[in-house]
Amino acid sequence: MTREPVPDDGLTTRQRRHQPLLAVYTGPMKGKSTAAFGMALRAWNAGMPIAVFQFVKSATWRVGEEAAFTALGEAYSRTGMGAPVEWHTMGAGWSWARKAGTEADHARAAREGWREIQRRLAAERHGFYVLDEFTYPMTWGWVDVDEVVETLRGRPGLQHVVVTGRDADPRLVAAADLVAEVTKVKHPLDTGRKGMRGIEW
Amino acid sequence: MTREPVPDDGLTTRQRRHQPLLAVYTGPMKGKSTAAFGMALRAWNAGMPIAVFQFVKSATWRVGEEAAFTALGEAYSRTGMGAPVEWHTMGAGWSWARKAGTEADHARAAREGWREIQRRLAAERHGFYVLDEFTYPMTWGWVDVDEVVETLRGRPGLQHVVVTGRDADPRLVAAADLVAEVTKVKHPLDTGRKGMRGIEW
Repeated sequence: MTREPVPDDGLTTRQRRHQPLLAVYTGPMKGKSTAAFGMALRAWNAGMPIAVFQFVKSATWRVGEEAAFTALGEAYSRTGMGAPVEWHTMGAGWSWARKAGTEADHARAAREGWREIQRRLAAERHGFYVLDEFTYPMTWGWVDVDEVVETLRGRPGLQHVVVTGRDADPRLVAAADLVAEVTKVKHPLDTGRKGMRGIEW
Repeated sequence: MTREPVPDDGLTTRQRRHQPLLAVYTGPMKGKSTAAFGMALRAWNAGMPIAVFQFVKSATWRVGEEAAFTALGEAYSRTGMGAPVEWHTMGAGWSWARKAGTEADHARAAREGWREIQRRLAAERHGFYVLDEFTYPMTWGWVDVDEVVETLRGRPGLQHVVVTGRDADPRLVAAADLVAEVTKVKHPLDTGRKGMRGIEW
């Protein structure tokens, strides 16, 4: 085992242990959100308040993850173990907004979601943010990439952020501390198998 | 969106929706177990009894995931939502074994773990198995790859199995329905940042 390099950044080990992480899970496979939610399990156990912002149209896509994290949030309420969990879905209408978004104004709904995230980051409201499928509103020009990068770079305190979705913009990748791709080697849907409850959703 | 190919396998859609999945998460990055546990969240919500077999020495590596899945198992016991969860760690001594394995006999402990998994598969005891870091005992020759493949191919009923770890044997990859690699694009530990609670464990 080689020794870790000592970085020339003027920080103490303790400071380096307490830096907010910006992670991006990208690439063509579905496992990127799966990996982000797996990360959130550790954050939950470490007592970081979790907030998931799901930038996808269909509210059914993450039904398994949502149910599990809701149960973890309830476990926290009941026993104090772990951390609180909030789950917000764009497709179902953001839970803090007055009414559900319609088919016609996804762009507006995405921007509203991003504004809310900006407010929460400024207020240091959560410890671990999952911005699920958030690359798409950026790709489609609904949310400005430079503004996202600036907001994330300047966020106060110890707030970890994980962004998932295909085709992450190079500016977001450049700003991220951890970038991982899930690469498909072989997938059952390629051979005509059907999606299964408990596996695909 | 292209239409899915209709496979020439003589199965109905319903049958194809109820086929047991063998998934392998491999590659050099830590996210492979993270992705497997993310998958297990969906399985839990779909009511599949979960069993995790952790083939790693240190019992602290998966402390966040273990705590979260233990909470999910308790949520099931209390409310009937989700599914029961069992978590077995080799390093801490398999919970069904009489005594903890010592440093000297990891190979024996790994084989005992595999034997227990074989018994449980034969008995259709669980719905979703995570064999975490199970590629290593195969790589090191402690557990016979051909026997693993034969057992998994012949397992009865609807039991999903996910194997994680680096350097998955080509025979296991060939037998798997889904194979994915997590590829590192950029990692904070490369630049001398320290592992953080809630992120790395």
